Amino acid sequence: MLDRALELARAGRAQAEADFVELLSIPSVSALSENRAECERAARWLLDRLTKMGLDADLVDSGPGGHPVVVGEWIGRPGAPTLTIYGHYDVQPPDPLEEWLSPPFEPTVRDGFIYARGASDNKGQHLCGLKAVEHWLGAGGPPLNLRFLIEGEEEVAGRGLPNLLHAHAEQLASDYVLIADGSFVAPGLPNLITGLRGLVYVEIEVSGAEVDLHSGIYGGVAPNPFNSLAHIIAGLKDRDGRIQIPGLYEAVLDPGPEEVASWAALPLDESETLRELGLADLPGEPGYSPLERRWSRPTLDVHGVMGGFVGEGSKTVIPARATAKVSLRLVPGQQPEVVFDQLTERVQVLATAGTRARVTLLNAASPVLVDTAHPGIAAASRAFASAFGTPSVLTREGGSIPVTNDFQETLHANLLVTGFGLPGDALHSPNERMNLDQFHRATEMVIHLIQELADV
Amino acid sequence: MLDRALELARAGRAQAEADFVELLSIPSVSALSENRAECERAARWLLDRLTKMGLDADLVDSGPGGHPVVVGEWIGRPGAPTLTIYGHYDVQPPDPLEEWLSPPFEPTVRDGFIYARGASDNKGQHLCGLKAVEHWLGAGGPPLNLRFLIEGEEEVAGRGLPNLLHAHAEQLASDYVLIADGSFVAPGLPNLITGLRGLVYVEIEVSGAEVDLHSGIYGGVAPNPFNSLAHIIAGLKDRDGRIQIPGLYEAVLDPGPEEVASWAALPLDESETLRELGLADLPGEPGYSPLERRWSRPTLDVHGVMGGFVGEGSKTVIPARATAKVSLRLVPGQQPEVVFDQLTERVQVLATAGTRARVTLLNAASPVLVDTAHPGIAAASRAFASAFGTPSVLTREGGSIPVTNDFQETLHANLLVTGFGLPGDALHSPNERMNLDQFHRATEMVIHLIQELADV
Repeated sequence: MLDRALELARAGRAQAEADFVELLSIPSVSALSENRAECERAARWLLDRLTKMGLDADLVDSGPGGHPVVVGEWIGRPGAPTLTIYGHYDVQPPDPLEEWLSPPFEPTVRDGFIYARGASDNKGQHLCGLKAVEHWLGAGGPPLNLRFLIEGEEEVAGRGLPNLLHAHAEQLASDYVLIADGSFVAPGLPNLITGLRGLVYVEIEVSGAEVDLHSGIYGGVAPNPFNSLAHIIAGLKDRDGRIQIPGLYEAVLDPGPEEVASWAALPLDESETLRELGLADLPGEPGYSPLERRWSRPTLDVHGVMGGFVGEGSKTVIPARATAKVSLRLVPGQQPEVVFDQLTERVQVLATAGTRARVTLLNAASPVLVDTAHPGIAAASRAFASAFGTPSVLTREGGSIPVTNDFQETLHANLLVTGFGLPGDALHSPNERMNLDQFHRATEMVIHLIQELADV
Repeated sequence: MLDRALELARAGRAQAEADFVELLSIPSVSALSENRAECERAARWLLDRLTKMGLDADLVDSGPGGHPVVVGEWIGRPGAPTLTIYGHYDVQPPDPLEEWLSPPFEPTVRDGFIYARGASDNKGQHLCGLKAVEHWLGAGGPPLNLRFLIEGEEEVAGRGLPNLLHAHAEQLASDYVLIADGSFVAPGLPNLITGLRGLVYVEIEVSGAEVDLHSGIYGGVAPNPFNSLAHIIAGLKDRDGRIQIPGLYEAVLDPGPEEVASWAALPLDESETLRELGLADLPGEPGYSPLERRWSRPTLDVHGVMGGFVGEGSKTVIPARATAKVSLRLVPGQQPEVVFDQLTERVQVLATAGTRARVTLLNAASPVLVDTAHPGIAAASRAFASAFGTPSVLTREGGSIPVTNDFQETLHANLLVTGFGLPGDALHSPNERMNLDQFHRATEMVIHLIQELADV
């Protein structure tokens, strides 16, 4: 039946591309309220496809102002494992329009790539899953249970899908969740993401005197919240990049030596990053490679500072207060609540005489660590090898993918976090694209994955 | 003749008050272009008075958009010293109007005070000088040469008077310059200001990568200009308030032990300052009293920080650049150019790996030190004793009075920097006022001063 599904996929490439063009033609920009009906149209297009394929499908309302989640299930193998395939049908706004070589919602093929907003992020990456399931159903039915959860609020950080997961964790129970919303490490080199950093994002407000003061009259006696804030920030992370918050590193789970060694072997060209950033080197915590610092070490960054005089010229004010936006990236082992408390305590110690500091939490996300020993990981790697000729390598991400946290917290499933795109797909930029060969091979990868996971 | 002048002053109190009301009725707000004609009217009113008194007077144009300087001279005692009396006829805008108990340009007497915008700042403080000279001329002529320089751009930092001083230093040569634009230490306690702090005001721009970056992807490898800026600022002044710029304190001329002792004896209530600022104590450089820190120690303050994300919420950006507005207050002995160089060098050392810092000078002023051994100081103190019953004490100011720099740089005269107002005169605030008894005694003080300086 696997072979039959693969045959159907190969025979159905032209149809798959026609479907791809249809889906890409819908301008489902979730950030624009005037595109609300188009988001609904994309959801209904997917609903229609899932239903026609033979899934039990529906749209789940996401509340006022939200866009519906497309849910489709095929629970035809009682007792077999369940694979949930995640995707998002909403896309980024296409601006600046004038930089597109072909209109963003008129999909155009050039040199083996299809160009359109959403081609890689994320329509191409879930449509291949949809086609894979369609072909399995055409071949007599997949060897495990399947579910699609395709949301319409990923680009606007909507709560529709997270709320659905939290409210219906039992009905949505899954053994595996496939989250394909990224890209290969390099052409021909697929990867599975095994770790994502978490986040603690705060505002640190420092106050001094009750009113703004003249620095001529009061300079030298009145506490300056900005100078205090500088001591706080400088005291949180030293000049070399080591965080100076007692206990912060204690909870960090270091990646194993094999994982670190595998990173060193990746064909990631650091000199290209340096060129992009216009830098001579990448400074940071001593003792760790740049990749280790991005993927497996916590860090602390200031994003902006508010208060005081920021106009033209030279107003000599000692402001009553100063506020910094500061975030920490967390790595597996760390808990946002604990880090927030450690940070708050440290800030209190660092505030200078005569100033008071208050730390307010704006945003938090737990780090995600995927169990690499889980047989699903090896199964996915074999599926990549079958479809692309190369098994996947294990990598991590420096940022958070919020939905991975929601899946991990609610379903406790084995996460298969990967990407079917390629570097250069221009996500969020003009001339976004997806390679069509990549798209078809990704369909085959999911067909293989369904078999591999059933065989585990 | 001194006695005759004093008699005339006492007999002319009603007329002096009528003149005061006339001058205060002119809304000579230099900051408002719609009040341009009123500024001109105030200048002409003064010109008319000086001319009628027998001075050789004129208006000197201050260039496009400026307000004229009123210049009046009586050089009737060749070989005798020359006293220049400074003042400014322009006033602050009166807003917020609704907080005035009587309209700001309808002078109203209540409880011995005359209420109007400009009463204390500065119309009352130069009109008393004008009346003193008028009475000396009525008594047969003063015993020294006299000049008035009354500008109309003090509240807008105009360059009319400074340019005049620099262009005509020889014609304007003076032995003494009386600058009365402040207030007594306390009722009944006059003071002479012997030192003013200078200023070096800069922007420190720190840059990292060429573009804004995502802190998830780049946090831990890309340099963060804000974190670097925090290390720079924290490194410029330590947690206790000591500036950490090599060589900076070397040039500082410490006040003598007598001067410091006299400050300690001043009836300045620190607890009132604490109440005003809502603070439990006044933190600052160890080893120096709050008054010493305000008057005779350099300091460093941050006024604002620009760049990055300052909107609502939690954008995770590593900005390409961050800029701080920072100033140093300088004390006698220090030179702005030298301090700027020292600061710039120190900033370069403090910028963290991967970031570059640039220091741009926005504003500079030299500190002013008055020679307290000069006999003019003692003469002024005796004049205060004669008019107010108490000799003046020596104090300093934490801020700059730019015109003192201009007088010192151009005329090299002995500066008599003082104030005839009282604490509570509400300068720059609604319900500005001047005590009428204070005004009349100030007139007598200037009459005495003219005699004392002639006798030196």
